[in-house]
Amino acid sequence: MSLPLTKEQIHSAIATMGQQARQAAYGLAALSADQKNDILSAMARELRAETETIVAANALDLHQAREKGLSSAMIDRLRLDASRVEAMASGIDQVARLHDPCGEILSEVKRPNGMLIRQVRVPIGVIGIIYESRPNVTSDAAILCLKSGNATILRGGSEAIHSNRAIAVALQKGGESAGLPANAIQLVPFTDRESVVALAQMDRYLDLIIPRGGKGLIETVVSLARMPVIKHYDGICHTYIDSSANLEMAIRISVNAKTQKPGVCNAMETLLVHEHVAHAFLPQLAFALREKNVELRGCERTREILTDIIPASEEDWGTEYLDLILSMKVVNSTEDAIAHINHFGSHHSDCIITDDDNAAKYFLTHVDSACVFHNVSTRLADGEEFGFGAEIGISTDKIHARGPMALRELTTYQYRITGDGVIK
Amino acid sequence: MSLPLTKEQIHSAIATMGQQARQAAYGLAALSADQKNDILSAMARELRAETETIVAANALDLHQAREKGLSSAMIDRLRLDASRVEAMASGIDQVARLHDPCGEILSEVKRPNGMLIRQVRVPIGVIGIIYESRPNVTSDAAILCLKSGNATILRGGSEAIHSNRAIAVALQKGGESAGLPANAIQLVPFTDRESVVALAQMDRYLDLIIPRGGKGLIETVVSLARMPVIKHYDGICHTYIDSSANLEMAIRISVNAKTQKPGVCNAMETLLVHEHVAHAFLPQLAFALREKNVELRGCERTREILTDIIPASEEDWGTEYLDLILSMKVVNSTEDAIAHINHFGSHHSDCIITDDDNAAKYFLTHVDSACVFHNVSTRLADGEEFGFGAEIGISTDKIHARGPMALRELTTYQYRITGDGVIK
Repeated sequence: MSLPLTKEQIHSAIATMGQQARQAAYGLAALSADQKNDILSAMARELRAETETIVAANALDLHQAREKGLSSAMIDRLRLDASRVEAMASGIDQVARLHDPCGEILSEVKRPNGMLIRQVRVPIGVIGIIYESRPNVTSDAAILCLKSGNATILRGGSEAIHSNRAIAVALQKGGESAGLPANAIQLVPFTDRESVVALAQMDRYLDLIIPRGGKGLIETVVSLARMPVIKHYDGICHTYIDSSANLEMAIRISVNAKTQKPGVCNAMETLLVHEHVAHAFLPQLAFALREKNVELRGCERTREILTDIIPASEEDWGTEYLDLILSMKVVNSTEDAIAHINHFGSHHSDCIITDDDNAAKYFLTHVDSACVFHNVSTRLADGEEFGFGAEIGISTDKIHARGPMALRELTTYQYRITGDGVIK
Repeated sequence: MSLPLTKEQIHSAIATMGQQARQAAYGLAALSADQKNDILSAMARELRAETETIVAANALDLHQAREKGLSSAMIDRLRLDASRVEAMASGIDQVARLHDPCGEILSEVKRPNGMLIRQVRVPIGVIGIIYESRPNVTSDAAILCLKSGNATILRGGSEAIHSNRAIAVALQKGGESAGLPANAIQLVPFTDRESVVALAQMDRYLDLIIPRGGKGLIETVVSLARMPVIKHYDGICHTYIDSSANLEMAIRISVNAKTQKPGVCNAMETLLVHEHVAHAFLPQLAFALREKNVELRGCERTREILTDIIPASEEDWGTEYLDLILSMKVVNSTEDAIAHINHFGSHHSDCIITDDDNAAKYFLTHVDSACVFHNVSTRLADGEEFGFGAEIGISTDKIHARGPMALRELTTYQYRITGDGVIK
């Protein structure tokens, strides 16, 4: 498909993929957990067997990337070698070992008229994944969708198209050898923007779209999509040091939340501190963070205590730095801290450090975020840390999935009702 | 607001309502079940006290409707009298008696590092209801949202604007006398189409939109909305008579599903019958349905048995008649019946009549619909019949809410995590 395609050709090709995916989804929904696990194992084997092919395809992407002058960081993200292919394959083996949520009875009730109503967990159907990042998303996302019984249509970015194709072909081929329905995992073979438009409009065949990538990509998908989109937006995470905080713990958690891995969505971006402990706490914190090369920015009251730091502007409060930068603000009360978080935060993960259980309870019940923590670093907002095994992302939406989104969140339910001639 | 508003004025007014609703939502989320029930009782009282005002406002709408030449059926739907106001008020009293789902612990796990993770049911936040139907939706929808802790922005149609305003004012006023936060229930005071655009774009303040009305309205909202939309589309419901059906029960259920209330979404629109029982079943069915004045349409094989009926076209299979019309088709197998339902149906409610448990199990696990029934009329697909007390509609979506959508489906969850200095 190297010739430029017309808009009609793209829409027609995507529609065909949609129909095929719907058929595959019906086949997938009927598979048992054991059958799906056999399929996953076969996929992992095929991925390992095709390591050379995949690395060779990746070399084409790397060549293209260098010609385009991509940054060395981006090229590194794109690079696949034998160990990265092995990491994908062992990721599949891990997912095979996870509990299959499909078929779980979520509720069961017998009504006075004799109807037995069972609410049963079932796959969603067909999930579209639109991504622009590393080629391993091709495998990681498709595998989680497959384990939860869903067909996928994957639309990766142009920079990784050769790698993505090689991975998708290996997964589908390996899976089919163990009974995977045809077209359960399909990769859109072209990367024109119109293919995103076509996917986003295809609500007949796509039950859900999950964009994986930057804010620009998510915004585009949201503005185009006719079907539900689950969004994984920014993490503007806060740590609030209450007047009754254990300051030693507050330092330890703050340093961890800011510096243990600053480039991820659950790292702290803003620290709030109660005025009663600001004088005792901020100098100690500044000392600890400077040892880790963190740039500090503060509100006026913070700068009365830490006189040598730069001011934090209004823009800072709404910025996800993903870097060794921290904005800091002195607040008058827990209520003020909560109001700041609910206004400027991204409703992802926020924490209170306190020994006062009432303050903790008030914070946990009033902060409108997916994860609210008491005396725990926001870095713990993570599917693996929660015991979910693997996650497709951290949803900043409130509908269907909130917070770490794993296998359970890739399912829906159906009511199955039996009776003996019940009429109304 | 009788002067025409500019686009900017509308967007600005809606944005202000959004901000106010968000503040109200924080207040609502902090209310206890008892506080919310007191508020609901006060609302019901105020609605009763304002009966005359509401009926007088309704008279303005009725006058306008007659001037516009609306049909008598539409005018009847619009009409409010003392007994219809009383029905709204007693609906509120009923909702007050329902269990409040907020605060339920959905899961609880202690991790090896000491983190205690509680998944707690919480309100969604701010819900937009866009509707065009009867003025009682103003009360019914707002009340269910309020009981589940959500603020609402209501945008009704122009034909009922005076009635809607009077009802919304009474609800908010009555509620405030018992502690309802300001602006918890807001009605958009103008009915320009641009107000729908403004609401649909306001993803910062609206967490969810529920359109209540015809397909055209839903399509419009879906194409405009940046936030999740839960859709209550058509019910193209099927009853499949298996080769092992008890034919007496099959007649009883089919007649009930078609004729007990033909104008609703869970009424049967298409009947499928296995070829082995078609000759025995169809003449009996035709006799029973003709007694109820049902118009019959059939596939070619049906018409070999019922020679005097009109043919069903391809279009019939995808039509929600909402009327005393039935399309019928003879199929070769349960698989064929399922394929027809999954292709032509609306994934709402479908039924198999059979005494063969294997056929029933196969049908229930392969039909991709919100509610699948065995030996039960599709008319039972209903929140009250399911024991939910009251429903806001029947979702034909798969994301977040599927099937009868009641209080539980108007909530989301939050992870509340406590620990003793846990870091990563």
